[in-house]
Amino acid sequence: MAYEIVKHDQEMMRKVNKGNILNLIREKKPVSRSELARITGMSPTSVGRIVTELIGLGLIKETELAFSRGVGKKALLLDTEPNSVYVACAQIDEDVSRVGIVDFDGTIIRESTCICDAHNMSWDEFTDKVCDEIEKVIAEADFDKSRIIGLGIGVPGLVDTAHGIVLSSPQLRWENIQLAKHVESRLGYKTTIDNVIKAKALAENTYGSDRDAKRVVFVHFGTGVGSALITDNRIYRGVTNSAGEIGHTTINPNGRLCDCGRRGCLQTYITERALLQEARTIRNISGIDEIFEAASKGEGWAVSILDNLHTYISIAICNIICMYNPNIVIIGGKMVKKPPEIESIIKEKVDRQIWAQFQGSYEIKCSSLGEHAGLLGMAVLLVNKYIDIEL
Amino acid sequence: MAYEIVKHDQEMMRKVNKGNILNLIREKKPVSRSELARITGMSPTSVGRIVTELIGLGLIKETELAFSRGVGKKALLLDTEPNSVYVACAQIDEDVSRVGIVDFDGTIIRESTCICDAHNMSWDEFTDKVCDEIEKVIAEADFDKSRIIGLGIGVPGLVDTAHGIVLSSPQLRWENIQLAKHVESRLGYKTTIDNVIKAKALAENTYGSDRDAKRVVFVHFGTGVGSALITDNRIYRGVTNSAGEIGHTTINPNGRLCDCGRRGCLQTYITERALLQEARTIRNISGIDEIFEAASKGEGWAVSILDNLHTYISIAICNIICMYNPNIVIIGGKMVKKPPEIESIIKEKVDRQIWAQFQGSYEIKCSSLGEHAGLLGMAVLLVNKYIDIEL
Repeated sequence: MAYEIVKHDQEMMRKVNKGNILNLIREKKPVSRSELARITGMSPTSVGRIVTELIGLGLIKETELAFSRGVGKKALLLDTEPNSVYVACAQIDEDVSRVGIVDFDGTIIRESTCICDAHNMSWDEFTDKVCDEIEKVIAEADFDKSRIIGLGIGVPGLVDTAHGIVLSSPQLRWENIQLAKHVESRLGYKTTIDNVIKAKALAENTYGSDRDAKRVVFVHFGTGVGSALITDNRIYRGVTNSAGEIGHTTINPNGRLCDCGRRGCLQTYITERALLQEARTIRNISGIDEIFEAASKGEGWAVSILDNLHTYISIAICNIICMYNPNIVIIGGKMVKKPPEIESIIKEKVDRQIWAQFQGSYEIKCSSLGEHAGLLGMAVLLVNKYIDIEL
Repeated sequence: MAYEIVKHDQEMMRKVNKGNILNLIREKKPVSRSELARITGMSPTSVGRIVTELIGLGLIKETELAFSRGVGKKALLLDTEPNSVYVACAQIDEDVSRVGIVDFDGTIIRESTCICDAHNMSWDEFTDKVCDEIEKVIAEADFDKSRIIGLGIGVPGLVDTAHGIVLSSPQLRWENIQLAKHVESRLGYKTTIDNVIKAKALAENTYGSDRDAKRVVFVHFGTGVGSALITDNRIYRGVTNSAGEIGHTTINPNGRLCDCGRRGCLQTYITERALLQEARTIRNISGIDEIFEAASKGEGWAVSILDNLHTYISIAICNIICMYNPNIVIIGGKMVKKPPEIESIIKEKVDRQIWAQFQGSYEIKCSSLGEHAGLLGMAVLLVNKYIDIEL
């Protein structure tokens, strides 16, 4: 038992140290080994071992001899290698899925979308169609295919990342699907799946407009409603990777009946279906775009529906601010299209509704990565896993 | 600017390293320096510097020469020194405040309560009475008074810990009170104040029955309703130390009017005042104990009020589980007295109300530290601050 504890401590420490070294190289490149040792307080031996491992993985390289900061003689400096590894990524949703190839620097070198209707296809038909698209993108993109380190798929719903299983996706209507295993046997790449909202949050934190923010929440208002908190550059997952499921917080104990069989869940007031249901009590419309369009023409019924939607979106954000106290709230999803218009509408409502104590503590922004966030987030996750710095 | 970044990295790394070393000594004592270096991957120089600092502070001591694990020759081992430092602590509330002296090992060597009515005293009268009680306890307790490292006060409400200011405490009816400064000038000890719920959560995590739990939420149902999340042994504070303010999440957009001027805040359904208001529509009672008593005799009106209370407490816990996905939820406060009876009532309601996906992911427990949690939590905070490992 004592041995186990020691092993665990060492393992944790090793990952933290490796993550710190890689982040320092990314930030201060080019940088010398002695500088890394000086900053971290680690022994030159430990720094050397990690650097050797990262060079072995091809992620960093030695540049020419140069004077390093604070050191009197020339030393070999370390820099990152952008084309060292690539991740094939997909973000799937009930109607349109997106696939792409992302390099080590977070550049999407090729991407594509495919229309897959989860409600009218079996899960394996759906997945095969997405796999075809991934194969196509890999084939068409110009890069060294042997450098693909794996496949990452962002999925709406609850995901058991460790076992590659989609536990439950009300959006896709999937339950207990062995997604990673199926994709691996189909395409031959090691496959990692995760909740797409957590992936998007990580991408916004890593590549978005507020990289220095310390407490970032991404809130997705789409088919469902979900959120993810990033604190000190790490996803806050909770014990079963289910933190942030604000869609199923109770907002009205005697409210509308939800898919989940309970009453008054927040998402019964916000999702596409809720809007359509309400609209159809007075208009025979075919999709929510008709509501947006009618509202922009000033038609009273549509303006009223959207105003109500924005009120509930603002309540969701106010509740998130109370619970997570973030400095940045990033909103995305098809219910909050048309930035910057929607940004100012929501900001104004939240500023009016929020508990006075929180005023001035937060910013609200529309996603700057938009449709690309899911792919970029899965790429970050796979690179961390590849380097074994996932914590 | 580059220099600033380097400084910041070094500062962070130094605190993390020091915290790791101290925790390892606490866990594996007696333990040698070389063992610490081996486990952490730190250089013997860095380990030696930290150990020297901790010995200098008197918190750890060298024991006799002994064989250390995995080392072929005898070495000096390191152990903690329980009587090295003491913290004078207080947890204040609107009616009864508690003060005590806590040693380095988290033992309360002396404590006392005092009745101070915040609603009928000015804030400085109130504070002076608490200060008198602290002075009395310090005088009466048998310990080396020169070893008091500071005074810690847990306060209900929003606290600016950095500046020692109570920003807003609806419970005490205080706004922008320079509490730390006042107490310091009165008693002469360096004073740290913090939100008492965060302190209690930290104490439950450090000394409670589930020290190994990784995601612990403490929820307080008292004069107000609040919660605090501990993740990997650290308080999740948010950007303005206000995370966990679930009392002001909206639970019913058209609901009851709250103190804060908004409608349908969770705490309008849970607090003492809400219960009294409801009860008094049909019975002229003097306090909530009469409701608890009548309910235990089976009087319908009281049973119904408590049933409704427990429903809202359960909704609060369900919403917390959705947002934080903890493995342990610890409940405390005067609205949930009488464990284990209340524990099983709440457990049953939450199990019935929770979204199916979370079933089996959490445990719900009554506080095992009870009334002592606030004192112990403030002691942990002050020791961390003293050693400069607060992150």
